[in-house]
Amino acid sequence: MTDKPGIVITGASGRMGQMLIKTVLESDKAELAGVVEREGHDWVGQDIGIAMGGAALGVAVTDDALAAFSEAQAVIDFTAPEATIAFSKLAAQAGCVHVIGTTGMSDAQIAALDPAARDTVLVRAGNMSLGVNLLVQLTKKVAAALDEEFDIEVIEAHHHHKVDAPSGTALMLGEAAAEGRGVKLADVADRGRDGITGARKKGDIGFTAIRGGDIVGEHDVLFAAAGERIVLRHMATDRAIFARGALKAALWGQGKAAGAYDMIDVLGL
Amino acid sequence: MTDKPGIVITGASGRMGQMLIKTVLESDKAELAGVVEREGHDWVGQDIGIAMGGAALGVAVTDDALAAFSEAQAVIDFTAPEATIAFSKLAAQAGCVHVIGTTGMSDAQIAALDPAARDTVLVRAGNMSLGVNLLVQLTKKVAAALDEEFDIEVIEAHHHHKVDAPSGTALMLGEAAAEGRGVKLADVADRGRDGITGARKKGDIGFTAIRGGDIVGEHDVLFAAAGERIVLRHMATDRAIFARGALKAALWGQGKAAGAYDMIDVLGL
Amino acid sequence: MTDKPGIVITGASGRMGQMLIKTVLESDKAELAGVVEREGHDWVGQDIGIAMGGAALGVAVTDDALAAFSEAQAVIDFTAPEATIAFSKLAAQAGCVHVIGTTGMSDAQIAALDPAARDTVLVRAGNMSLGVNLLVQLTKKVAAALDEEFDIEVIEAHHHHKVDAPSGTALMLGEAAAEGRGVKLADVADRGRDGITGARKKGDIGFTAIRGGDIVGEHDVLFAAAGERIVLRHMATDRAIFARGALKAALWGQGKAAGAYDMIDVLGL
Amino acid sequence: MTDKPGIVITGASGRMGQMLIKTVLESDKAELAGVVEREGHDWVGQDIGIAMGGAALGVAVTDDALAAFSEAQAVIDFTAPEATIAFSKLAAQAGCVHVIGTTGMSDAQIAALDPAARDTVLVRAGNMSLGVNLLVQLTKKVAAALDEEFDIEVIEAHHHHKVDAPSGTALMLGEAAAEGRGVKLADVADRGRDGITGARKKGDIGFTAIRGGDIVGEHDVLFAAAGERIVLRHMATDRAIFARGALKAALWGQGKAAGAYDMIDVLGL
Repeated sequence: MTDKPGIVITGASGRMGQMLIKTVLESDKAELAGVVEREGHDWVGQDIGIAMGGAALGVAVTDDALAAFSEAQAVIDFTAPEATIAFSKLAAQAGCVHVIGTTGMSDAQIAALDPAARDTVLVRAGNMSLGVNLLVQLTKKVAAALDEEFDIEVIEAHHHHKVDAPSGTALMLGEAAAEGRGVKLADVADRGRDGITGARKKGDIGFTAIRGGDIVGEHDVLFAAAGERIVLRHMATDRAIFARGALKAALWGQGKAAGAYDMIDVLGL
Repeated sequence: MTDKPGIVITGASGRMGQMLIKTVLESDKAELAGVVEREGHDWVGQDIGIAMGGAALGVAVTDDALAAFSEAQAVIDFTAPEATIAFSKLAAQAGCVHVIGTTGMSDAQIAALDPAARDTVLVRAGNMSLGVNLLVQLTKKVAAALDEEFDIEVIEAHHHHKVDAPSGTALMLGEAAAEGRGVKLADVADRGRDGITGARKKGDIGFTAIRGGDIVGEHDVLFAAAGERIVLRHMATDRAIFARGALKAALWGQGKAAGAYDMIDVLGL
Repeated sequence: MTDKPGIVITGASGRMGQMLIKTVLESDKAELAGVVEREGHDWVGQDIGIAMGGAALGVAVTDDALAAFSEAQAVIDFTAPEATIAFSKLAAQAGCVHVIGTTGMSDAQIAALDPAARDTVLVRAGNMSLGVNLLVQLTKKVAAALDEEFDIEVIEAHHHHKVDAPSGTALMLGEAAAEGRGVKLADVADRGRDGITGARKKGDIGFTAIRGGDIVGEHDVLFAAAGERIVLRHMATDRAIFARGALKAALWGQGKAAGAYDMIDVLGL
Repeated sequence: MTDKPGIVITGASGRMGQMLIKTVLESDKAELAGVVEREGHDWVGQDIGIAMGGAALGVAVTDDALAAFSEAQAVIDFTAPEATIAFSKLAAQAGCVHVIGTTGMSDAQIAALDPAARDTVLVRAGNMSLGVNLLVQLTKKVAAALDEEFDIEVIEAHHHHKVDAPSGTALMLGEAAAEGRGVKLADVADRGRDGITGARKKGDIGFTAIRGGDIVGEHDVLFAAAGERIVLRHMATDRAIFARGALKAALWGQGKAAGAYDMIDVLGL
């Protein structure tokens, strides 16, 4: 036994779950306290190292999340909205920090996390990378500094499996730009440009989505005026940055007061 | 009098018309033989140099296109489809090379140029730049060399006045990619991507259109596979390249056999 | 006579001088009060409009700078270091705002402007564009926010006539990055990378210079870590942005207290 | 036993060696016939799966290369020049296809492979990726099509561990550009640009090297003229593409006549 915070990973068999497990194993600041899969999954009961095709690690996959959380200091959770709501209650009960990277949550689903945030530390972000969160801050600042002579476009590129466009991160950047300008994104968003569109409307924020290959995620915020352009760009080339960001959040949350936080808090931006 | 080919410019008062006039004036291989505007236009009868806000040039703007063409070796014409069809007949009658940079012509309008091309040299292209025409050739070749593991996307950026998306040049690049793959663009074009689109369909050719500032015209053809990408990019930063390409076509056409040509012929690509 | 500030342009025959003259003529907030060329230049005595190849403008080119400055509210000066020092004394004498875009000034030459700044408003900047000055601010902030896991590279591209590398603006961006990190640029600058260089030294700031065609000026500040990158990019596509920035500075300076200012002051960044 | 070609991997413990082993294991067109490490290495005698930290694979690491080659149809070798020369003799003796991705070989070392190439199929390339080899072909073609009005620059970016600049692939692209123009690269290469360089010399081919983070490898060939630019770009985002290219070469070589080949042959470009 060590005094490093013990971390539980949910959704252990998924691509992101396995990435999170590896990230915890490689860290010298945390240890893997447990891995959770849903009841009935093949992996339940197996050693996680063997299940992932490697050597044994001495940690068995469990479907008893509460038991796992009770032995740990934090849970990192990139699963699905309903599972995440259920996990938030168990994490609160166990007094565990709950780091949430789950995407696609509706406003109602996000609100359903509130009770847990009264009892424990809950960190949730649409994108856990340092770079993207910094880009969001910069976008807001630049949009506030420049006037409407600068047309704003958010351009993103992702792998060909992605099913939605624009990406959640692109929308987050668009929100930041709109906030910087003091307008509502819904009033100025220009999406899916195609055909006879007419001239670009001043003040609009355009979105375009490129899809191809295995692109992890790239986002440009373009500010284009007569004779000059500014581009703020983020490129993610390895999903591990999201796992490292989540682990950073789990460690940051130790000893903090209960409440709902995001990555801006964690990164101190 | 010199033995340099005399060039007539139509649509003299427009932005592209004035660019063409300057390009001819700056060239030491051609001379300005006439400038044409439509009947009733303010500029008709004025010295073109003065009309453009400079010193007199000794060439008066005329609305008698046939008379102007008859004194010249070539006409360069970036006007509108119907005007261009009318000019093609007059150019054939005058025995003048007709260089056409007019965009937005329908298939029927293009067919209406055929009679003229039986009598004179007619060079028509959607984009007169050396670079874009080279890019079209490369796109076809690369699309033929790579299999469907490479997703193809055509990404273009233009100024905020542009009223259509994607650009004519982007569609020309998409056609080249489709031809390279042996498919029809209409069957695989994926335009205006927005919302819950589902995963990208293998074999599709995607289009995205960025609009902002005074961007003259930028086109990327992206080939993205697992672990690698190829990008073929063209950036136009000065409209003068289109004027220089058109002048090159006018000079190239001297002494050629009657017929319909494009910039691939002119550039010998 | 109007109550708009009258502007004098020095170095009237140069590319930047003519750009400045056009910018003042097109503005509705200022008027052209005079144009200055050096003694003995062909243009001296001519109407500036005719000298530039256009219609007469009613303003004669003069070699008597003091007389011209005395009739004006501001002088915009993109000439050479020694000329600029001389002009600064005359501007102070005339009580004129002095906007300086002259590049390549040594520390000693910059110090020689101090006496003038005690008597009048002097605005000097290595780069007059809004975008570049904003980029400098962002670079400092981002360099401060990120640790040394992020390697910093400044990449610039300019036309093939440029005689120095890296550009003054690239060095300004490098200074901002070093300041953000709390180091001295001279200690960490890595320039002219070539041959067997060994691995990149942690904490270094690298510079690379691309040269080709007529590229007006492009600057990237790259922050690259494991799995992610941030890029802050500025593209200048038209020299007019520098002229517009200079005119903005001239207007901003009206009524300000005597002193030495830069574009950060003018833009209120 | 199957009838799929058996592949041996040399340098099994290195990063590229392990990547090659995984690529062969994941392929359904080849099987792993053996893995070789140098005499005295810890891994010799161990099961390769266990040595790599996973489950046993039933293939032991050996230091007897000839024995391993004799049981296989091809060997893939990304080691060091001297080792590769020694392996080439053993591969020839065993009648095995020899695929060489070893970099940094001198002309004399490359010549030392000739005897082996008389007896067996030897495929050697500085870069095994499909995309880079295609880019080399395109670069030559475009350089031949464009005249010296287009300035050529090769820009590359790699991770911060890289010890040489510019990259071997950048030089290969520069060679292709020079060949397309009918000049010798040594006469026109402009490297390590820094300080007062003077204006760019017409006809030069410039090189710049960006270093940062874990960038796998990115290469741009820029052709910049007045008013327009063409960029041919390749981005490698996963080293697996080099391993997949090597395996493709190993399979392609089956049944071919003895001789020295490169990836252009393999890819049929």
